[in-house]
Amino acid sequence: MLNETSLVAPDIQARYSSTRALTEALAAPLSPEDQTAQPMPDASPTKWHRGHTTWFFEAFLLPGLPSYRPYHPLFGYLFNSYYETIGPRHPRPQRGLLTRPGTGEVASYRTQVDEAMSELLAGPRQPGTTFLAELGVQHEQQHQELLLMDIKSLLALNPLRPRYHREIADDAHPSPALGWVELAGGTGLVGHDGTGFAFDNEQPRHRVVLRPYAVADRPTSCGDWLGFMADGGYERPELWLSDGWSTVQREGWQAPLYWESGEHGWAVFTLGGLKRVDPAEPVCHISYYEADAFARWAGCRLPTEHEWELAASEVGLAHRFDPGRAHPRPMGVEATGAAGQVWEWTASAYLPYPGFRPSAGAVGEYNGKFMVNQHVLRGGCVASPPGHPRATYRNFFAPHCRWPFTGLRLARDL
Amino acid sequence: MLNETSLVAPDIQARYSSTRALTEALAAPLSPEDQTAQPMPDASPTKWHRGHTTWFFEAFLLPGLPSYRPYHPLFGYLFNSYYETIGPRHPRPQRGLLTRPGTGEVASYRTQVDEAMSELLAGPRQPGTTFLAELGVQHEQQHQELLLMDIKSLLALNPLRPRYHREIADDAHPSPALGWVELAGGTGLVGHDGTGFAFDNEQPRHRVVLRPYAVADRPTSCGDWLGFMADGGYERPELWLSDGWSTVQREGWQAPLYWESGEHGWAVFTLGGLKRVDPAEPVCHISYYEADAFARWAGCRLPTEHEWELAASEVGLAHRFDPGRAHPRPMGVEATGAAGQVWEWTASAYLPYPGFRPSAGAVGEYNGKFMVNQHVLRGGCVASPPGHPRATYRNFFAPHCRWPFTGLRLARDL
Amino acid sequence: MLNETSLVAPDIQARYSSTRALTEALAAPLSPEDQTAQPMPDASPTKWHRGHTTWFFEAFLLPGLPSYRPYHPLFGYLFNSYYETIGPRHPRPQRGLLTRPGTGEVASYRTQVDEAMSELLAGPRQPGTTFLAELGVQHEQQHQELLLMDIKSLLALNPLRPRYHREIADDAHPSPALGWVELAGGTGLVGHDGTGFAFDNEQPRHRVVLRPYAVADRPTSCGDWLGFMADGGYERPELWLSDGWSTVQREGWQAPLYWESGEHGWAVFTLGGLKRVDPAEPVCHISYYEADAFARWAGCRLPTEHEWELAASEVGLAHRFDPGRAHPRPMGVEATGAAGQVWEWTASAYLPYPGFRPSAGAVGEYNGKFMVNQHVLRGGCVASPPGHPRATYRNFFAPHCRWPFTGLRLARDL
Amino acid sequence: MLNETSLVAPDIQARYSSTRALTEALAAPLSPEDQTAQPMPDASPTKWHRGHTTWFFEAFLLPGLPSYRPYHPLFGYLFNSYYETIGPRHPRPQRGLLTRPGTGEVASYRTQVDEAMSELLAGPRQPGTTFLAELGVQHEQQHQELLLMDIKSLLALNPLRPRYHREIADDAHPSPALGWVELAGGTGLVGHDGTGFAFDNEQPRHRVVLRPYAVADRPTSCGDWLGFMADGGYERPELWLSDGWSTVQREGWQAPLYWESGEHGWAVFTLGGLKRVDPAEPVCHISYYEADAFARWAGCRLPTEHEWELAASEVGLAHRFDPGRAHPRPMGVEATGAAGQVWEWTASAYLPYPGFRPSAGAVGEYNGKFMVNQHVLRGGCVASPPGHPRATYRNFFAPHCRWPFTGLRLARDL
Repeated sequence: MLNETSLVAPDIQARYSSTRALTEALAAPLSPEDQTAQPMPDASPTKWHRGHTTWFFEAFLLPGLPSYRPYHPLFGYLFNSYYETIGPRHPRPQRGLLTRPGTGEVASYRTQVDEAMSELLAGPRQPGTTFLAELGVQHEQQHQELLLMDIKSLLALNPLRPRYHREIADDAHPSPALGWVELAGGTGLVGHDGTGFAFDNEQPRHRVVLRPYAVADRPTSCGDWLGFMADGGYERPELWLSDGWSTVQREGWQAPLYWESGEHGWAVFTLGGLKRVDPAEPVCHISYYEADAFARWAGCRLPTEHEWELAASEVGLAHRFDPGRAHPRPMGVEATGAAGQVWEWTASAYLPYPGFRPSAGAVGEYNGKFMVNQHVLRGGCVASPPGHPRATYRNFFAPHCRWPFTGLRLARDL
Repeated sequence: MLNETSLVAPDIQARYSSTRALTEALAAPLSPEDQTAQPMPDASPTKWHRGHTTWFFEAFLLPGLPSYRPYHPLFGYLFNSYYETIGPRHPRPQRGLLTRPGTGEVASYRTQVDEAMSELLAGPRQPGTTFLAELGVQHEQQHQELLLMDIKSLLALNPLRPRYHREIADDAHPSPALGWVELAGGTGLVGHDGTGFAFDNEQPRHRVVLRPYAVADRPTSCGDWLGFMADGGYERPELWLSDGWSTVQREGWQAPLYWESGEHGWAVFTLGGLKRVDPAEPVCHISYYEADAFARWAGCRLPTEHEWELAASEVGLAHRFDPGRAHPRPMGVEATGAAGQVWEWTASAYLPYPGFRPSAGAVGEYNGKFMVNQHVLRGGCVASPPGHPRATYRNFFAPHCRWPFTGLRLARDL
Repeated sequence: MLNETSLVAPDIQARYSSTRALTEALAAPLSPEDQTAQPMPDASPTKWHRGHTTWFFEAFLLPGLPSYRPYHPLFGYLFNSYYETIGPRHPRPQRGLLTRPGTGEVASYRTQVDEAMSELLAGPRQPGTTFLAELGVQHEQQHQELLLMDIKSLLALNPLRPRYHREIADDAHPSPALGWVELAGGTGLVGHDGTGFAFDNEQPRHRVVLRPYAVADRPTSCGDWLGFMADGGYERPELWLSDGWSTVQREGWQAPLYWESGEHGWAVFTLGGLKRVDPAEPVCHISYYEADAFARWAGCRLPTEHEWELAASEVGLAHRFDPGRAHPRPMGVEATGAAGQVWEWTASAYLPYPGFRPSAGAVGEYNGKFMVNQHVLRGGCVASPPGHPRATYRNFFAPHCRWPFTGLRLARDL
Repeated sequence: MLNETSLVAPDIQARYSSTRALTEALAAPLSPEDQTAQPMPDASPTKWHRGHTTWFFEAFLLPGLPSYRPYHPLFGYLFNSYYETIGPRHPRPQRGLLTRPGTGEVASYRTQVDEAMSELLAGPRQPGTTFLAELGVQHEQQHQELLLMDIKSLLALNPLRPRYHREIADDAHPSPALGWVELAGGTGLVGHDGTGFAFDNEQPRHRVVLRPYAVADRPTSCGDWLGFMADGGYERPELWLSDGWSTVQREGWQAPLYWESGEHGWAVFTLGGLKRVDPAEPVCHISYYEADAFARWAGCRLPTEHEWELAASEVGLAHRFDPGRAHPRPMGVEATGAAGQVWEWTASAYLPYPGFRPSAGAVGEYNGKFMVNQHVLRGGCVASPPGHPRATYRNFFAPHCRWPFTGLRLARDL
């Protein structure tokens, strides 16, 4: 999974430090009150993200440091997310009721673990330590993204319209032209090749057969989406999957999440405040159901995850999709979800690759046990930490989820 | 309702100041995180109580101060509890998601309103101002009690077992002997006589006919309750009202709220931490259903609110029940709910007295519109501010509620 | 409770036979399919009513007939309604899933029990037998009313608009003038005096003190109600109890149950089909919340149950309210709920009378255990079997219920 | 999709008649009461199945018969299942409240449509008519299976333990030995080749790449399942998908649906009554979650639908799996769900094949709009009408469903 020799000690130590610091920087603009509340069961308080990522190192790495004493006997109970083999957990929907430990004590917890990790990583390492440390870093990077999408969902519920960061420009530009990248299909290889870090769910690399296809050279824009809405997209059941249509009706969806109809047209709540919907930006905060309905309306379809990966990795998609360019603005400062790249829903259900083997031990619960009732998203988003996404990365959410930074890219048969 | 001339200006000014200061003192031990969370829809965050009681003065009194400018245009929306005639409100179950305004800004809000109220009360007053100021003080006193019962319900959900105040003695004493006070019944007068402040729901004073009856000379104790439990009280449907029994089964009740079965017998979570159940203390945190079932088990019944009031006011109940002695310990310091007096459930539904007229204007929503689906409680509790309860005071809660400081006193026919 | 000697044998035998026959006559127009479905947990299938009333005699009377063998070992489980002391029961919300026993087998069950009851009543009776038989008759009469209100709620859900009986005249007449009956108040006696049958909840007879008051000389009419609606009755929160207003909003109430807005004004679904709302008829199928809001809108209030009873029994209310005239049309033939007398909500919560003692044994569960969260209704309705209601009769339902034949009569202070 | 010329007229007429007759034969043992109730929203009343399958012909075929008049203007509303483009529908969860039309009128409806269909099929046919008639026949065959699984779920809820057909033998035999069929993998073709009828979701036929694999030569047996249970299968979270484990805990699953623990070991409710669990029979009425957990426990996995199809069609699986032998007993007479073949869960999510095109018109809603949140099952079951299943047939249910006749077959990598 991870080639141990490909990561040298200074690298992981530096990566550990900078990742931990970035989490704190992301939390810094938030008050103790902001860090405590939980807007819905799917989203966690900032304070909990800070504690949970710390617990990950304490639970999986620090038993390897003989001198280490856990910070508190109950923090494992409070900050374990879903590792059944580690032990019982505080119920997820009640994370917002844990007013203690407070933000200050969580900071102390982080400091203690950071000091111990520094000692652990500086000394001679047991086999697997480097991998687990890297896994912990990657895990914390995932939570940095979750922290931002969760705090956005909380602030959006406040009638005071609080901002996470400074106000952003209220621009509006025309939707750019849409081009297509054509691919010949045939037999291709998908999945991670083992060079550098990858999650277990990206492996094994394997052959797939594809028909000739084309993918759009940019994500669907807000301008495109306004066309869908103007054409009755949210009122026409023939465009929707059955589960999608019943969700539209039950939830009263009429636009992407965070969009509001106002006197001057559609506005959108962002981490920088309320602003006009900019037709040029990728549409964001849509469910799989909406992505699928839009594609059907457009006479297209969503790409499979294999189509997406081969287009991204083999053809290059220069000037179109480039994981290295996924963060045109400093992450965390203007992570608006409406101004940047978005995770792209694919047509593929989240299932194991042929020959999939979960990682050994408790971290084997990391990915495999979620392989049902989810769809794969590819790419990365404005909230993804730099260097975190890659072409083989398999993100996943349930089809109704809209609070992540989710969009789509069209595909079609040739 | 309130005899305007009976309250002189210095009195209300001093009462305003001391009441406002007590609220802040009660909140002081709580962190910003503690003050933000909402444990259930019935209970509100501390921060919200502080803002709401402030808004009450801003909304009902300060329009009378020409120079006053409201603190924030949306605070009325955020801090209005249920006054339909004032305008729309933030949904009650989402009060815990309002991380802004933070505790600091709530303090600023309180300061601005206090300064304006000081100016208003110092000057010549319009008719009704003194009454409304006194109503606001009484209202804030009610919220002091709510603040304590709400924060207790929040802290009890935290596996870390946080304490609100210093640890209290882990004593256990035998349940005191139970005596009876006999009353002749006949025609009596109940309701407030108009001397001093009273809520509209305590009036008009009116005649009632009672049969001869007896009431216990003390509330039911934890020792009594342990006897009920040992005799299968929670397992015998014949003791329960139908709605009560279905609640017992649905909720899995086996003891009062906050009781826990441990290695050394029953313990109870208090604002001072976990301690042994003391048989000598009044049982607390029971629903009307439980109070009613206990009385049936004991071969008795609950007193009606009229029986309770006449026993308390006519016979005196010295050394038995005495509102003036309801607070043997400094309120807020050891308000444990299990160590002190309790609100006593009566057999009476909360209904208007004959000839009842709600107060004029928006404050007419204060009491009258809740006169259905509730039962009356009488007395006062350890969390009641000194001087707040009186013999005619009608507290009320829905029959399933257990998070207030609720107990019972037995009665029987003669 | 019941004076055993006041009921001679032929009387109870005849009453048993005619009551049992009326139940079957009421069910006769209904197909096996109609008799099986359960429209909501509160309402039971016709087939179940037929079985349950039969089980009542089997469970409470026939153990006194030595030769009797229960029809089926599981019928007690299926047809026990809520008698905890008798044993466990089939869950109420699943009564509609009991397709067996079918209507035919229920008829056989009724026949077997009728034959045994005939034998029991013909022979020498043990003490209490006559009372229990009369109680069973009264119980079955109550279920005759329930059967009609339950089947109405079922048929109303069917888009085919099925009729229970022949179409009724689609008349409309002006609302009659409203007069007032004035009463002096003072001390009066309420409750049953022990002559003839009464339920335990009507006793003991006791003294009450009333202020001078007036009651309307007729129930509120549909014409009156149309005035309430036209004046925004369902949109004005200041008219409503808090629980009532939240129910109005949650349920989207805009008119009484079964009313429909059509091209030609308001229509109402009846057991005889859809017809125009007739302003002259008493309004029916309203909740306590609506009755209370209407009274507040009218500048009046609801009478207490004591006021109602004294007005009905002492002053007579001839040509106004007369239980003996409660059935101007043959019950069951034109029981429309909108054309006839209605049960009248009172301001009184359903609570025990002073000195109340439930009947001994399992039938003690009949009334007492429901004395919480309900309001008292007085009078009788078009679906009440002839002779069943009396001036002391205390019917009761939860405040949100609208599917019974419920209306109101105004009262006011003098 | 369907080669029109491959179906000659006599064939479809005969198939129409025999299929329609089989539906009536399946309903014949059920009383009007049995045919009316709906045990849960997922399952429909027998009476509704009879009406809905009839409506399918009326809505999609009989507009082509100029003389035809619809039976009732509202039957389209009542019997449309989910065809949004046809019009609105009665809410699915309320199908059990439609006591009218009764079973008799549904029979009349069937007769009218059958006569019209006979006329339509006898005359010269428009293009597409034969396909739509065949689709209607296949549709009705699917509902025959649904009718049996739905009525089983209803009868199982009745404490009287009613039987659908005569009692079946209470045998128990040892679980047969398990063998493996090895397949080389490589590139293969899956999907229907266009010879004879197929649903749109079985097409287009396309190439897939498979690794070498093995599949069990028989479905997992009840004996195998008892081993899983004895080894704590339902108590070990590490065996389960996350959604599966939370379902196990929420629903309290401890065995397959319809299994009951009794004095003499495990029994199972069947359409022939309660009988002992026979270790030799295929396990039935398990969810995808359970199938997946069992496979993980066994150190194996579920086959993908492609693996299943290639194993069934290419290698033959004679004496192992053979669709032609899926009905060892007359369907409908002893369809017990525990004694016969079962639909086999696969590891594949139900998604469109590459190049999938739904059928044109309203029947395009038949399959495509359900392609999310479901897993594919392959094979056929004891309740499948003879000739209905084929190797390319893609059945599908949500992962939590247990009321269909569902089992599993193990697979593993080579």
